[in-house]
Formats: sequence, structure tokens, C-alpha cells
Amino acid sequence: MKQISGGVAAATGFTAAGLHCGVKNKNHTKKDLALIVSQGDCAAAAVYTRNRVKAAPIYVTMEHLENGVARAIVCNSGNANACAPMGHENAQKMCDVAGEALGLSPDDIVVASTGVIGQTLNIKALEEGIPKAAAILSKDGSDDAAQAIMTTDTVKKEFALQVQIGGKSVTLGGIAKGSGMIHPNMGTMLCFITTDAAITPEMLQAALSEITARTFNRVVVDGDTSTNDMCVVLANGMAENPLIEWKDDNYKVFSAALYQLCELFAKSIAADGEGASRLITCNVRNARSEETAERMAMAVISSPLVKTAMFGADANWGRVLCAMGYSKAPFRPEHVDIQFQSVVGSITVCKSGEGLAFDEDSAKSILSQDEVIIDINLQEGQDNATAWGCDLTYDYVKINGDYRT
Amino acid sequence: MKQISGGVAAATGFTAAGLHCGVKNKNHTKKDLALIVSQGDCAAAAVYTRNRVKAAPIYVTMEHLENGVARAIVCNSGNANACAPMGHENAQKMCDVAGEALGLSPDDIVVASTGVIGQTLNIKALEEGIPKAAAILSKDGSDDAAQAIMTTDTVKKEFALQVQIGGKSVTLGGIAKGSGMIHPNMGTMLCFITTDAAITPEMLQAALSEITARTFNRVVVDGDTSTNDMCVVLANGMAENPLIEWKDDNYKVFSAALYQLCELFAKSIAADGEGASRLITCNVRNARSEETAERMAMAVISSPLVKTAMFGADANWGRVLCAMGYSKAPFRPEHVDIQFQSVVGSITVCKSGEGLAFDEDSAKSILSQDEVIIDINLQEGQDNATAWGCDLTYDYVKINGDYRT
Repeated sequence: MKQISGGVAAATGFTAAGLHCGVKNKNHTKKDLALIVSQGDCAAAAVYTRNRVKAAPIYVTMEHLENGVARAIVCNSGNANACAPMGHENAQKMCDVAGEALGLSPDDIVVASTGVIGQTLNIKALEEGIPKAAAILSKDGSDDAAQAIMTTDTVKKEFALQVQIGGKSVTLGGIAKGSGMIHPNMGTMLCFITTDAAITPEMLQAALSEITARTFNRVVVDGDTSTNDMCVVLANGMAENPLIEWKDDNYKVFSAALYQLCELFAKSIAADGEGASRLITCNVRNARSEETAERMAMAVISSPLVKTAMFGADANWGRVLCAMGYSKAPFRPEHVDIQFQSVVGSITVCKSGEGLAFDEDSAKSILSQDEVIIDINLQEGQDNATAWGCDLTYDYVKINGDYRT
Repeated sequence: MKQISGGVAAATGFTAAGLHCGVKNKNHTKKDLALIVSQGDCAAAAVYTRNRVKAAPIYVTMEHLENGVARAIVCNSGNANACAPMGHENAQKMCDVAGEALGLSPDDIVVASTGVIGQTLNIKALEEGIPKAAAILSKDGSDDAAQAIMTTDTVKKEFALQVQIGGKSVTLGGIAKGSGMIHPNMGTMLCFITTDAAITPEMLQAALSEITARTFNRVVVDGDTSTNDMCVVLANGMAENPLIEWKDDNYKVFSAALYQLCELFAKSIAADGEGASRLITCNVRNARSEETAERMAMAVISSPLVKTAMFGADANWGRVLCAMGYSKAPFRPEHVDIQFQSVVGSITVCKSGEGLAFDEDSAKSILSQDEVIIDINLQEGQDNATAWGCDLTYDYVKINGDYRT
């Protein structure tokens, strides 16, 4: 498995484009429309936000993917088309316009939006922009497409991998945007992945669902879940590997590659959380079950007290233990070891549930790095889980509270 | 029902004291030991933290209250005696020393601690301090006791009420500390209530459990739950009202007064959340059940995005609707009305799930007050719930992240 360039257009048969069409009407330099297209029909799989309030494009995409087939993705930023007048009509209109521009059926188009809630989408801008995007589709378009789906993201998220399946070189690539949220743009976790693997929609959905649960669903920036979250994978089969239609060895290789790609996106989204100064990874090891490990890791990563301590590079392990305690996952506090790790070293601060004397200076140095790991050993079983998040900083408050002043 | 002065020593037969004994060893001006004593035996009821990691004094108190009888409360701040060496021994020792100083059985003493986790309690300071506190017990001691349980609280929390039960004047009073947390002092929600009502331990526990669920358990400062949370009520019967032993009319009057008192504490704790600039109340009305209303109100009050918007006095109702959506409580978004209210007026920002045009200036003025209400009408049923919290400010991050720098 090796990382390559090309992002969402790296796989054979895919092209992409991104441009500014006017949805972000106050900022004419920022791209706000992305288009991703496959030469041939794709097996399609998707996971959606579990928020009870779902944006219109979510419902339209669900409908279009019912048959497990798609050809293209159209996405705007700047307006979420959620709780907005004409929501369904406008989401459908985006598909109609894209279908016409690309010579495809609107039913084969995935539509997504991210941005402000409750305001009418500027569909006129999109009606003009989508044909323009279709006209500039290229193998080099991933960078523009990645920029066009960004809202408060400070870093473009674009990765691609190559892997051998059944003697063929298979490529997986994608673009994503983070879950940071900002007024007036309420943001969203979006991820669009393309691959030239030959795989059935059923196997693609199985892999995506399983992997999402262990990657994107274990990212916490602020615990809020958007109305528009979506992760879609399109697989056009042009790598000509033997069709993956069972959970065989080829499925495992594909699935491992998809996991790798999703973990890269999950970590980059966590690291780019609003106002974040560092990526926090929490490993919970040797738990009775993966579920309890996950629950504890999520509680630690979500705790505002842990997050602020990480901002202050403060080895406040009591807050870690406390968060584990209120996670409602069963464990024995008296067995717990807690260690802080980073590129410069590691330090054990709690052994069998009680504090250890440790050097404050070296703890500070370990916790001051860009990536910090909170490693928790429960010493109770064999299951593990990892969750990713970021610290809670002045900038988070500034971005989300102080925007208009 | 009328509010009176005297706090935790307002009820007949109760005295209190507070002083500095040395647990807070770096700050000799701050009180760190509180003592509350009844002249006669009390019916006792308590609720405790549901955190799996519980501090030693929680277990000792649970044991001492098994028979439903107590006489006194001893509490220190500055050290939580949680995950600390000699925890159980030291908590028990506090009861032994208090028992000796007061001429009571150690089993009749409630013990509580709040402060840093994982460090050995300075029991020597307490062994010297407790007899000194016992020597200065008085009807005027509530103020000192209230100060002695504070950690990062900026406001002393002390209330008392008087109510007529069966022709007798019954007093309920108490002191509390907030749930804000700070390193090295990991704080805690503590509330000690005394009353001269005559009531059985069973009825007292029933009232406290029911009321706690609707008051303290609906306060969110940062969502973290401490290892040391405790609310205790002692009732010594000296008001000589007819003994409350059934859920009769007298029970209802007592229970209404206890609710009133607990709501006062809950609101003052929420308003004094770490770094808070304003109290946020969320009412969810006309829900299918109280449980769904509660779940939604808690989700809204807990949302970092809602909390930062409130800090910015930003009428960002999309974040409110979004938080309701991920609360997992069932509701129809298309029925939802959302209104912001404060002392200067009210403004409806969302009607039947869609945004209304509203005057930004008057919204800003409404949201800039010290107390802001987010009023949500689900239009689905007849049940209601209220939750309390505060905004998320730069100071929260400063207090919890930047403490040592």
C-alpha cells in the first residue's frame, strides 16, 4: 500500500473540478462548487448523519443511491440547504442541472451541501456554475474540488492510495472537509472517495459502514453532529481486478486500504478542528469489549476539561480518569494505567488507578507537541479502540462566539 | 413560602462553622473546612455522583447513611481525596475526629471532599482544624461554611426558605458549591441542606431523588461529572410539624419547598459555571414526554456551539435545532418554534422548523443580558422540561487550560 497524489481524481476514470460560482456571495475568491465524475457507472455506498434534522440533499442522495449505482457527485459550500425554503426542490435541481451538463440521468448523481442553515440556496448561481465546472473537469481537478468543499477548514484534505488486488493496481482517493462549525456557515463532515476497484455495491457498503464506525465516527471536534454529514464511495471497476463480491481475501485487502484512507481523513479532520492547536489521539487498550473501549475513548476525547488541559499541555490525568468514569462503560479504576505519549517521549502518570510522581517539565514537553496520544491500559481484556480529537482553545471560542464582533 | 437568611444554619437546631485549617496550603486566606451540626438526630437522605470513579468520602458517607440517620456534616475543600493514597482511612479519620470533637458516633457523620485528585489528603491539618471548627459552631456560621466549600466558585451559594406545614413554621436552608473544575483543584457539585421538618428518612429520600433529577441533574457547565458530587439533606424534626410519613399534602408542601431551594442552587451553580458570563435556561415545552423534553433541553444546554453562540449574543437558532436533532429524542423538526427571551424582551427566530426574518439588533440586545432563555415549543404533547447552563467563554479556556502559565 502506498500513498500517491491525485486525490479524488487519482483512480482511473475519475475527473474533478472546483470553482467559485457565487453561493459564497461575500467572498469571491473562495471556491464553492465541486464536481466529481466517473467515465462509467459506479457501485455506490454511503453513510449519512444520524441527526434527526437532515438537510434536503441528504434525502435526495439517499433516494438516488437506493439502486447502489451512481456516476457523479455535485457539492456546494456556503449554504447547507437545511431547514431552508425550497430545500428539496433546490437539491433536486442541482442534480438535474448536473445531469444535463454531464449527459447523465439526475438519478445517478449524488448531491451534498455545507454551510449556513435556514437560508434559501442561491440556485441561480449553481445553475450557471455547474455547467462551467463540467467544462473544466480534469485529472488535475482534485485540488480545486477539495478547496471548493472547505468552510472553516484551514487545511485542504486530500489523499490517495494504491494497492494490489488480484494482480491489478487499484487506486482509492478522496477529498474531505472537517466538522468544525462556524456562524453563519454551519459546517459539516463531508468525505467523497473514488476508486477504480471492481466491487459490488453490497460489499462496498459493508466495508464503508464497518470502517466509518471505526474512523469518522470516532472523531470528536466539539461533539456536535451536523445536519449534512455524509461520506460517499464510488467504485467504477476500471482497475479490472476480480470483482469483489464476497468477504474474501481481496475484500480484506480493499477494506484495509479503505480503512487506511478513512483514518487519514479522520485524523486530518480532528487535527483541523476549529481553533485546534494539536491532534489528540486516545487509545483505550485491553478492554473487555471494543464497545466499552470506544465509549471510554470517546468520553476522554470529548471532555472539555481534558481538551482544555491538552491546550495547556497540562498532564492532568485526573480529568482523563474522571471522563472514563462518567462514560458509563464498566471498568476497574484500580487497574488503570495512563500514559501520555508524543514524538519526544512518553510518561506514565497513573499506575493501577493511583497517581505517580512525574517530572512536570518533561510532561510539559511531551504534551506541547502537535500530536499527543493519551494511552489508557485497562488491563481487563483484549479489545482496543482509538478516538481522535483536538484541544479546546481560545480560538474555538473566538471562531464560534465572537464571529460578528 | 418566603426566602430568609441564615443558610445552612437557618433551621432550628442547626449550627455551622467554616475556617482555614491548611488543606489549601498555598493560600492561607481561603477557608477549606466546613462543619454543620444538628442538636438532635436527623433523618438523612443523599444522592451521589454516578461517576464510576468515586472518591473515598462518597463510600464512607454511603455507609454512614445506610440507617438513614445522621447528626453532622464535615467537608474540606482543596483536596478531593479521590484516587489518593490512604483515601478510605483518611475519610474515616475525618469522621472519627469530628465525632470526638462533637461527642457523636463517627457513624452519624457525613464526610465530603472537593479539590485535587490523586494527592494524599493533609489529614494532620484536618485533625487540628476540626476541633477548632467544632469550638466556633454558631447560628451565624453558614456564611463561613459556604465559603469553606468553594473552589473555583466566584459567588457564595447560600439560600434558606420558610414554609408552613400543619400549622408550624418549617425552615429549609443550605449551602452549595458549583461544578466548575480547575487544575489542580478538580471541583465538584456539593450541596448540604438542613431542615427542621419532621419527616421520615424514606420520604426525605423520595423527595430528594425526585427533585435532584429535575434540578441538579439538569445543570450543565461543561458536561463533566465529578468523582465527588454529593447532595445531602438532614431533617431534625424540631419544627414539630406532624411527621411526614406518606405522600400526603404535607409531603407536597415540603417537597415544593425543597424543589424551590434546589432550583435556586441549581440556577446559581449554572450561572457561576467556570468563566460564565451569563445563565442560559432552556425550556422545552409541549413534548411527548418529560424524558424527551429533558434530553433535548440537556443537548441544547450542553452544545459547545450553542454555548459559544450565547457568549457572542448570536441568535444562531440553527445550532439549537441541530443540537435537538442529535439528542436522539424523537420530534418533528417541522413543528418546532424557537424563541429567545430575556428581561428586555423576546424574539421568535424559528417557526415551524424554518427561519424567520428578525431584527438582528434587538436579538443582540435580548441575548446580551445576564439571563437568557431559549424557549422551544415542540407542539407535539403536554410535557415540559427545563435545563440550566452557561455560555462558553475565553475565561473557561483560560481557567482550565492556561492555569499554570
